Amino acid sequence: MRSSGADASRAVSPRTREECLALDAADPLAAYRASFKLPPGIIYLDGNSLGVLTVAAAQRIEQTTTAEWGTDLIQSWNIHGWINMPARLGARIAPLVGAAADEVMVCDSTSVNLFKLASAAARSRGNRSKIITERGNFPTDAYMLQGLTALVPGLELQMLPREQIATAIDRDTFLVVLTHVHYQSAELFDMTALTARAHAAGARILWDLSHSVGALPIDLSAARADFAIGCTYKYLNGGPGAPAFMYVRRDLQGDLQPVLSGWLGHAKPFDFVDEYAPAEGMTRHRCGTPPMLSFAALDGALSVFEHIDMNLVRQKSIALSELFIALIEAQGPETALELASPRDPERRGSHVSFAHVDGYALIQQLIGRGVIGDFRAPKLMRFGFTPLYLRYVDIWDAVQILREELDRWRRHGPAAVTRHAVT
Amino acid sequence: MRSSGADASRAVSPRTREECLALDAADPLAAYRASFKLPPGIIYLDGNSLGVLTVAAAQRIEQTTTAEWGTDLIQSWNIHGWINMPARLGARIAPLVGAAADEVMVCDSTSVNLFKLASAAARSRGNRSKIITERGNFPTDAYMLQGLTALVPGLELQMLPREQIATAIDRDTFLVVLTHVHYQSAELFDMTALTARAHAAGARILWDLSHSVGALPIDLSAARADFAIGCTYKYLNGGPGAPAFMYVRRDLQGDLQPVLSGWLGHAKPFDFVDEYAPAEGMTRHRCGTPPMLSFAALDGALSVFEHIDMNLVRQKSIALSELFIALIEAQGPETALELASPRDPERRGSHVSFAHVDGYALIQQLIGRGVIGDFRAPKLMRFGFTPLYLRYVDIWDAVQILREELDRWRRHGPAAVTRHAVT
Repeated sequence: MRSSGADASRAVSPRTREECLALDAADPLAAYRASFKLPPGIIYLDGNSLGVLTVAAAQRIEQTTTAEWGTDLIQSWNIHGWINMPARLGARIAPLVGAAADEVMVCDSTSVNLFKLASAAARSRGNRSKIITERGNFPTDAYMLQGLTALVPGLELQMLPREQIATAIDRDTFLVVLTHVHYQSAELFDMTALTARAHAAGARILWDLSHSVGALPIDLSAARADFAIGCTYKYLNGGPGAPAFMYVRRDLQGDLQPVLSGWLGHAKPFDFVDEYAPAEGMTRHRCGTPPMLSFAALDGALSVFEHIDMNLVRQKSIALSELFIALIEAQGPETALELASPRDPERRGSHVSFAHVDGYALIQQLIGRGVIGDFRAPKLMRFGFTPLYLRYVDIWDAVQILREELDRWRRHGPAAVTRHAVT
Repeated sequence: MRSSGADASRAVSPRTREECLALDAADPLAAYRASFKLPPGIIYLDGNSLGVLTVAAAQRIEQTTTAEWGTDLIQSWNIHGWINMPARLGARIAPLVGAAADEVMVCDSTSVNLFKLASAAARSRGNRSKIITERGNFPTDAYMLQGLTALVPGLELQMLPREQIATAIDRDTFLVVLTHVHYQSAELFDMTALTARAHAAGARILWDLSHSVGALPIDLSAARADFAIGCTYKYLNGGPGAPAFMYVRRDLQGDLQPVLSGWLGHAKPFDFVDEYAPAEGMTRHRCGTPPMLSFAALDGALSVFEHIDMNLVRQKSIALSELFIALIEAQGPETALELASPRDPERRGSHVSFAHVDGYALIQQLIGRGVIGDFRAPKLMRFGFTPLYLRYVDIWDAVQILREELDRWRRHGPAAVTRHAVT
């Protein structure tokens, strides 16, 4: 998964604010910033948690509310194409993950989609019994698998440290569930190598792309990945709790029988017959009626990605994060900040984590200054770099503010702040 | 489930358009109509499929888009209370279904919530193996149960005609799944009697309230119902595909272990530990991040129901549907319309179905004239009566238009229309 951007970005690490401004002026992605409704006065380093509202999403929400629901009511399912939105939005995400249009569908949440695919894989597992995932994976992936294995007698979930996974995949394994970019460290799995390893043992692999999609080039087809899921409210800016997506490689679609078999996944839903019969392709994995206002927001947001070059996005993402790390580490060891992400940008997604003994208090102080990052217990400060609306000068300014807050912390200790939760 | 409204409504069945206008002038619910953004020129008899946009919902959507997501971004999960919306909206629905605030939660779709409850019930089924539901129930309920029983060895789904259900519930049954108001005929189950019957056999019962909630008084507590689910985009006007709700009677909540165990159902989701531990109460049934724009619409829509007297709603619902039936049947048998709903309004929900050999074509003609009903194969014309925005005069006018279209049909045969799907 080597991108062309890494070497180029290392070559242009700016050393002054003016050099940052010069990079912004030359940035081939600079025009994208106008697609976003950025609130004034903040530097938003949390697009890896909730992406920024786009102009297009705001318009589509208003249109769906007033001109569609408000005016055409029930007929909107047909005349405004609501009924086909899961497939239509899936087809728009497909090129971002290296899939064909009919291999991706938008529906439900990432958690529910993981359960759908894992339970469907369990139905056709033959005499294999084991699912493998990473210890320390994003919790919902582990929890949903724990629920599945608690329900079905004979299923087993093995949770292993990252370095033990490849060797643990064996002839008893029917499914491996891995997250491409780790939600804390941002460390990348080698999708191609792990997929090949799973296939060599006759197992299927499911990739969670929540922290990858929209941030770096992904090629599910080239990797021969079996299944994938992902969320759309991070780098895709689909809105809070935006519907998630799921992918099944085309040659596997016909044999995969849904367990969450809802009426909109039926071959003929409007015949209202008593017996479930799966629709063709991805459609069989639809369940209930999709939340159309949230789909509308995602529909708008995806228009930003329509003709995008993800290699340019990756290149700038690496440049921004490398700049951030370099500016922080230039301040010396007295900051007590310790890089908790891979140093090699080729092994890292689009966020960077630093551990700090007072990380929680520091993040609160930064938020108070308008620099929005987030905190992951027990001590990680997490900063996301979204190349479509962040500028080099934003990184420069954010680190200046972080430096001031670190100085304050060294002089006065952490501010008294109460812990609160962010997703 | 006898409501006080039936006799009163029968006493005032109007015989002229002027009498309809007089009833509207005296209607204690008349003021509610101003809460809705009704498109001009139509009579909307499909609120049982997709409710009308409210003024409050439009405002909340705009607020959540611009002032919350657009401005406060990730911090909105805390400062705007997004994270607690599933419980908050559940508490607002609770009085409409006769539940306590902590017995109802809003999340996911009706289909997914049914699977959650049925699979959780399956985990604690002991040595019982059977789920019973009605043949001809709304398909998604049957399909989701078919998926569950296909996954778990030893589970069995029995689908029976309505009249055979009570006697079929036996010591091998762990769950009965019934829809309170039938989606086609509008026929009501006797919730109290069936629940008692299930309990007498040691089984649990799950009520699907999709076609009841917001249309008639429901008292889950008085019936001692175990579980319930329901959708919010029909009579509650929550918007297209609005998030659904689920109910678990409080004394059952502690022992019900989720199968769809997502991170937001964890006791401490922001500790990010590897092992799932269920949160207290209903919260454990949350899965992924909730779609907040769709929640916002429902939040607005529910404000209409805040201090509502559901007995008044039921009374007017019966009066409108009785008027509709009476005006149609007064036209004599040459209409070829056959009532396909219970004649006794006490045994009927808030919609009325008529069978007609050319029902599909007639519904299309009506829609062309601005009278919006819907069609259910093979020959049902379905009309919903939503007392909060429909007037007696609307019913009068709708039947006049229906009469004209029936005349045209008798003279010229059905118009050439192509079949399309509505949910």
